[in-house]
Amino acid sequence: MAIQERNVYLENIPIEEARNALWMALDEAGKNAPLDGETVKLTNSLGRVTSDPVWAKLSAPHYHAAAMDGYAVIADDTIEATETRPVTLSHERITEVNTGAALPPDRNAVIMIEHTQQVDEGIVITSAVAPWQHVRMLGEDIVATELVVPANHKIRPVDIGAIAGCGHHQVNVRRKPHVVIIPTGSELVTADTAPEPGQIIEYNSLVLSAQIEEAGGTVTKLPIQPDKREALQSAMEEALSYQPDLILMLSGSSAGSKDFTASVINEIGHVFVHGIAVRPGHPVIMGMANNTPVIGVPGYPVSAALTGELFIQDLIARWLGQLPDIETRPRVSAQSTRKINSPTGDDDFVRVTVAKVGEKLLATPLARGAGVITSLLRADGLAHIPRFSEGVDMRESVEVILYRNMHAIEQSVLAMGSHDPMLDLLAQFLSANHPGTRLTSANVGSMGGIVALKRDETHVAGMHLLDEETGEYNISYLQKQLKNVPLQVVTFAHREQGLIVQKGNPQGIASLDDLRHVTYVNRQRGAGTRMLLDYELKQRGINSDDVKGYQREEYTHLAVASSVKTGIADCGLGVRSAALALDLDFVSVGWERYDIVIPEKYMEHSGVVNLLETLKSNTFKQALAAQAGYNSEATGVVQYKQ
Amino acid sequence: MAIQERNVYLENIPIEEARNALWMALDEAGKNAPLDGETVKLTNSLGRVTSDPVWAKLSAPHYHAAAMDGYAVIADDTIEATETRPVTLSHERITEVNTGAALPPDRNAVIMIEHTQQVDEGIVITSAVAPWQHVRMLGEDIVATELVVPANHKIRPVDIGAIAGCGHHQVNVRRKPHVVIIPTGSELVTADTAPEPGQIIEYNSLVLSAQIEEAGGTVTKLPIQPDKREALQSAMEEALSYQPDLILMLSGSSAGSKDFTASVINEIGHVFVHGIAVRPGHPVIMGMANNTPVIGVPGYPVSAALTGELFIQDLIARWLGQLPDIETRPRVSAQSTRKINSPTGDDDFVRVTVAKVGEKLLATPLARGAGVITSLLRADGLAHIPRFSEGVDMRESVEVILYRNMHAIEQSVLAMGSHDPMLDLLAQFLSANHPGTRLTSANVGSMGGIVALKRDETHVAGMHLLDEETGEYNISYLQKQLKNVPLQVVTFAHREQGLIVQKGNPQGIASLDDLRHVTYVNRQRGAGTRMLLDYELKQRGINSDDVKGYQREEYTHLAVASSVKTGIADCGLGVRSAALALDLDFVSVGWERYDIVIPEKYMEHSGVVNLLETLKSNTFKQALAAQAGYNSEATGVVQYKQ
Repeated sequence: MAIQERNVYLENIPIEEARNALWMALDEAGKNAPLDGETVKLTNSLGRVTSDPVWAKLSAPHYHAAAMDGYAVIADDTIEATETRPVTLSHERITEVNTGAALPPDRNAVIMIEHTQQVDEGIVITSAVAPWQHVRMLGEDIVATELVVPANHKIRPVDIGAIAGCGHHQVNVRRKPHVVIIPTGSELVTADTAPEPGQIIEYNSLVLSAQIEEAGGTVTKLPIQPDKREALQSAMEEALSYQPDLILMLSGSSAGSKDFTASVINEIGHVFVHGIAVRPGHPVIMGMANNTPVIGVPGYPVSAALTGELFIQDLIARWLGQLPDIETRPRVSAQSTRKINSPTGDDDFVRVTVAKVGEKLLATPLARGAGVITSLLRADGLAHIPRFSEGVDMRESVEVILYRNMHAIEQSVLAMGSHDPMLDLLAQFLSANHPGTRLTSANVGSMGGIVALKRDETHVAGMHLLDEETGEYNISYLQKQLKNVPLQVVTFAHREQGLIVQKGNPQGIASLDDLRHVTYVNRQRGAGTRMLLDYELKQRGINSDDVKGYQREEYTHLAVASSVKTGIADCGLGVRSAALALDLDFVSVGWERYDIVIPEKYMEHSGVVNLLETLKSNTFKQALAAQAGYNSEATGVVQYKQ
Repeated sequence: MAIQERNVYLENIPIEEARNALWMALDEAGKNAPLDGETVKLTNSLGRVTSDPVWAKLSAPHYHAAAMDGYAVIADDTIEATETRPVTLSHERITEVNTGAALPPDRNAVIMIEHTQQVDEGIVITSAVAPWQHVRMLGEDIVATELVVPANHKIRPVDIGAIAGCGHHQVNVRRKPHVVIIPTGSELVTADTAPEPGQIIEYNSLVLSAQIEEAGGTVTKLPIQPDKREALQSAMEEALSYQPDLILMLSGSSAGSKDFTASVINEIGHVFVHGIAVRPGHPVIMGMANNTPVIGVPGYPVSAALTGELFIQDLIARWLGQLPDIETRPRVSAQSTRKINSPTGDDDFVRVTVAKVGEKLLATPLARGAGVITSLLRADGLAHIPRFSEGVDMRESVEVILYRNMHAIEQSVLAMGSHDPMLDLLAQFLSANHPGTRLTSANVGSMGGIVALKRDETHVAGMHLLDEETGEYNISYLQKQLKNVPLQVVTFAHREQGLIVQKGNPQGIASLDDLRHVTYVNRQRGAGTRMLLDYELKQRGINSDDVKGYQREEYTHLAVASSVKTGIADCGLGVRSAALALDLDFVSVGWERYDIVIPEKYMEHSGVVNLLETLKSNTFKQALAAQAGYNSEATGVVQYKQ
């Protein structure tokens, strides 16, 4: 297909305008109102939304009921009774009743069993009861004809009880919006396939299906369609045959040669939005085909997920008479730990982690790329940088729409500092042992960890900083850089550092001396591993300019290993576990101590307490020792306090 | 059954002790750990909880991928290209690639299509690209072996995407805890039955089933069992035959004669908790039978629902490795609008409505009775009065565990004041027209509304206060009582007041003059209807002492009608709609104006804006006019401003 035939975006309109355009198109089609109802049994109604108000058919209670175990009596009979002059009520004047029983018609009070004495003739009482005492009167709770729940109410467990109690065994709820999803892309394969290079596992349909289900809709998913106009046309016809409420065409809306979505919609109906000024998510298409709305969802996973949250869940919610989830989520003001640049023309939604460190709520932006699904996984919220804003400065406050509630965020431990792949293992043990506690780590290198501690922007920091003079780790740096901060240094592990090399070590790399002859991949400035390299190079009299690839920086051991694996570099310094993870070889350089530094003031933080307990547990230490290149003998040992 | 054989509560222990006793009993049975896992397809995993960590099987991307539509090139080929000295790359040196495509093995950069010009020989470029530019490198997002999600993680839509993207199409999740519910009680009937007096619709099992489902469990419900020891024994045996994780015996745990739960458990196993110091909910039983925990749930609906929240959902959450919902819900400090007395020995959970009026967060206790299911329905949260506290004073602050998020609470309009049954109709139209906006009303009478306005404890107040001198409604009271408060008076409706009398008016009540001869049911002090009565009695020279039943107070028109319906009184003053609702007759006394008073400062409150818009809408006015005894001609008219 020639370049001239590729689509050009027609418009690039703000979110609200796009939503309104869609709503107006639905208006024309007579589909801009909450969906009609269907009758379901109460037992199947949890989480559904009422389509009609529920009015009480029956009062509750629907008769005068005993409110206590005891005897139903005529109040007037008891008037004379006192401690000194007890009254005996004969069997004819009393009726034994249990709580909830109906009062006989001629009785108007209940005397508690504890306040009676059984005798042959009946009961003896020593105090009077007032009319209607210990009686739940008809309609005390609810009177027939009163409103039980209004329309557009999402049914909770207690609602089911109240609705049943008022005489209903079924309820009218809004029909679930039905969405047909058409995944498109010749490069896509299903999740149960092992993909070849160039093949991509299609999972946007899984994310969107789950989002729709979560919002209260239901999904029919068609098979993945190749990038062929005819295939998309017939898929669209099939989708329309379901008479759904909404059709989603996934991918196909970038400017790539596979973009047929818009033309297929235009053939049957018309496209009215092509491009929305929101990041990530730009190439969103909206159209109508045969009176059915069609949304073209961008292919990048983060764009697709955000399109789901901003537009699709919004639409489902409106059809159910609900507010969309994103509008009702808690919003907080947090301080950004980094500068965030944002295009002025767009509403920008930046995935951030949120941590409460001391009194500060800190938002740290995750990877910005639209393809980075793990950024969604790790996000605690979305920082919204509105249109016409150029972004926020470091330490400026930013509004965050939270994915998790504040309780979860307050339970999280933030670890900014050096990266060790086994922090994942610790995170895993921590969450398993202490439900609700999470370890969030940000890889900023050992020196970055010291800076974060200094700024009080992290609970703990991992580091492995070799003091060239003493051969000791970390302590001299802390004494110098954080001398006024009371803290503890707890060992995470001893670990083996070395050169990660190609499988079989084809270049026969034997030591750091060989870095003169091969392509290297480096760690970022401030990383302990980078500092180790610089120290070793100096020892050997090697100039960093002579190390090819010294400028190429990666942020984690696994990223270094990945660069070696894919031939970008011949070797890089890192931990043995990273080499092993990617089936590479490893040339040992030596063992080092990796510590976790904890300011004294966070030693009582419940998440940190849980973290230390997990770290010191035998099960974790055994699991860590089982990893190649780790020694957990000193794990949990306090090396130093100041 | 003789009184001596009734159960006596064995213990009355605090919540935490009860939870620990249960957990220790489970420990002995080897059941105090999260449940084992089962493998499910990713498409069925939403909301399930991981039983194992998920590690990446595949890197993402799992190959070097083009990050742009364009041409894959060798970066070195492009070094010389500048605006003034373009470089032509031949077809052999370029490969057209779409976003996401695999880079051919010998290519190491992508040049964007926009930066090229197609010519016959290939493409012309005017700038260089750096190695790996516009390339998403293998593992850039996640490297195989990295942790994707830990164990005990509740699966969200994005997790499904990430897990699929890392090479999995199924996931190990914790088995759903299986609970068998045995409803017991000879007085109980199912919700699809029309109950006779003395019969109660059994809905606790519906509430508990939904609570269990909500927490992630699954339920088998046995039929309702009569209060016969043999029936309960065989039901218990049937329940055990399912080998469930938990058995619930509903009701039967009060001190009533139907209490066999404890003895049935003790026959097979043993009861270890009998009575927990929590209100409402006291008579909770816990035991073990055949290594299976059994909880005896009290019969009162509020007690049952709270037992579900505090103990059953807690247990389900622990079995799923999760924190229980009640621990993670938002907690706020609110000011109590009333004095709350609480027994010192108990943890008391008081259902409250919560409203944000101005800057104040106000908690108003709902009916305290354990039988009042509507108090659960209307509750925005639970005020927790801890053990050893005697309660809170009016305007003292109290901790509230919220059922709704703050957004929902901020959208609520609080109306304290006079009661009109048609406020339900308005609430219904409001929620239908404006999803997320709720009208919460508290019936404190017209004068109570004025007090609430004075204290700034309500957004709006309904009232119908007749000025005996001018014959005008409301305005003179506001001028006198709230002279410094800028406000508007908007008419809700004109409505017909009169005497609600028995069907067919057997006593031939013709006017208020007849009150000397019949039994009356009154409204509470401060109610406009009460003031109307007092005015009319004075006009007629009737002394209130001569009106039998004058002392008996009800808080709503429907409660008055209900008292008449059930023969407690012969008549009471109220609106025609209340008589009609309960199929009673009505002797008109006259028409009055019922207004809604809104302080100027809440005229911009979004909920109030929605309320007024709804009030003035033709659809609402028509619906109101269709009600007997209402005239909506003046509905929405501003009568007065100050």
